Amino acid sequence: MKKPLILVTNDDSIVAPGIRFLISVMKEIGEVIVVAPDSPQSAMGHAITINNTLHIDKVNLDNEIEHEYSCSGTPVDCVKMAVHEILKRKPDLCVSGVNHGSNSSINVIYSGTMSAAVEAGIEGIPAIGFSHLDYGWSTDFEPIRDYVKEITMAVLQNGLPDGVVLNVNFPKTDEKSIQGIKICRQAKATWVEKFDKRTNPQGKEYFWLTGEFVNQDKGEDTDEWALKNSYVSVVPVQFDLTAHHAIQKLNSWDL
Amino acid sequence: MKKPLILVTNDDSIVAPGIRFLISVMKEIGEVIVVAPDSPQSAMGHAITINNTLHIDKVNLDNEIEHEYSCSGTPVDCVKMAVHEILKRKPDLCVSGVNHGSNSSINVIYSGTMSAAVEAGIEGIPAIGFSHLDYGWSTDFEPIRDYVKEITMAVLQNGLPDGVVLNVNFPKTDEKSIQGIKICRQAKATWVEKFDKRTNPQGKEYFWLTGEFVNQDKGEDTDEWALKNSYVSVVPVQFDLTAHHAIQKLNSWDL
Repeated sequence: MKKPLILVTNDDSIVAPGIRFLISVMKEIGEVIVVAPDSPQSAMGHAITINNTLHIDKVNLDNEIEHEYSCSGTPVDCVKMAVHEILKRKPDLCVSGVNHGSNSSINVIYSGTMSAAVEAGIEGIPAIGFSHLDYGWSTDFEPIRDYVKEITMAVLQNGLPDGVVLNVNFPKTDEKSIQGIKICRQAKATWVEKFDKRTNPQGKEYFWLTGEFVNQDKGEDTDEWALKNSYVSVVPVQFDLTAHHAIQKLNSWDL
Repeated sequence: MKKPLILVTNDDSIVAPGIRFLISVMKEIGEVIVVAPDSPQSAMGHAITINNTLHIDKVNLDNEIEHEYSCSGTPVDCVKMAVHEILKRKPDLCVSGVNHGSNSSINVIYSGTMSAAVEAGIEGIPAIGFSHLDYGWSTDFEPIRDYVKEITMAVLQNGLPDGVVLNVNFPKTDEKSIQGIKICRQAKATWVEKFDKRTNPQGKEYFWLTGEFVNQDKGEDTDEWALKNSYVSVVPVQFDLTAHHAIQKLNSWDL
């Protein structure tokens, strides 16, 4: 079997420990090309750069990788740039992460890591976003190495259904206590915002966005349940946002 | 009936003609509060500001509105700020737009306008994003006034299913030739990117993101079909991104 071509990106920037770990796993599996943001792009969602210019620089952070680029844009820009400007052929897989922090539940919608994976999916590339609930940059990723590899190999072997990418989250725990992998649905949860109001040296008010994550979902088939119970959560994510079940109801309005 | 409290926002900035028009329609329906970006935030998707400070300024662009604020953040920041910092009670409705340009099909995922509506939906507020295919700032919005009003009144009267917001797009046409309103699904379409490569005065390469919109979907139940045939398209949009249909298949992988 020819080595698969694997595009690696993230949202924490090209120097983040999470992507360096992910690159190290992907090197065991295929030919790796890296196109990742030159600065942190957390919580950028599916933002793209249309009102500003984009820059790419060839970098050499890993001697074993021929094609490694840092990009001035968002994670989604990185995928677009990789596919349409840098790569000679469509990659066999795109992996994004490992994100420093959770992208489970509603976090998927704010996540630059997942938006990069979704963008690859839109381009017709099988894609996986990996995130670790432990957001510290000193996280030991080794305990999740075999899981990352197993899930990646499964996607390469089986492909993914059309219009679906994977959102994989790892619990805060060591390898011994990970209970296995659960296929889940996205838990219904929200952030309850608390803006931290401060005053700047000129006397003008400003705010920091903070908040508390509240899970309203008691289901045992959710990613939140899986993670709380030390499972790796895998949620299939789609980018057809149509609420198909609501179409009939709206038609009854006789607009 | 007590006047409904309506939060108005957008992504083209608080001075854009589209939001000023939308405000003028909402004043006919309820009590209006405006919290909108102080600068253009197109294509920001569901980005939020977590690594920078946020500012709000009370402005007075419309003498008939008591509470009008410009915000330094993204459209999603504006909704969070409105709900958790500015408003004393949860609004009865959030409307976003009218966007200068299409948010039909896959554009929904890049759109700041729609992300603001989705964020309101996550907060449990009925929400509608309005967009006009004509992206010029000199667009005449009057021909769509009655449609905006009709759809808004229908949502206020009927409510929306849990977890659903509306993505409304208007065709490029005048009132006489609008054929009516169609409830649709999101067409399967993508942008084929073409990066415009240039050289800066220092001799370094840079890029502008451009692209061509390609609709691969021949369905006559899609938003693209409706708009092409001069209908107003209404797509119910959900923020549970789980591809529920894929769960069984993934379980068969025996991970």
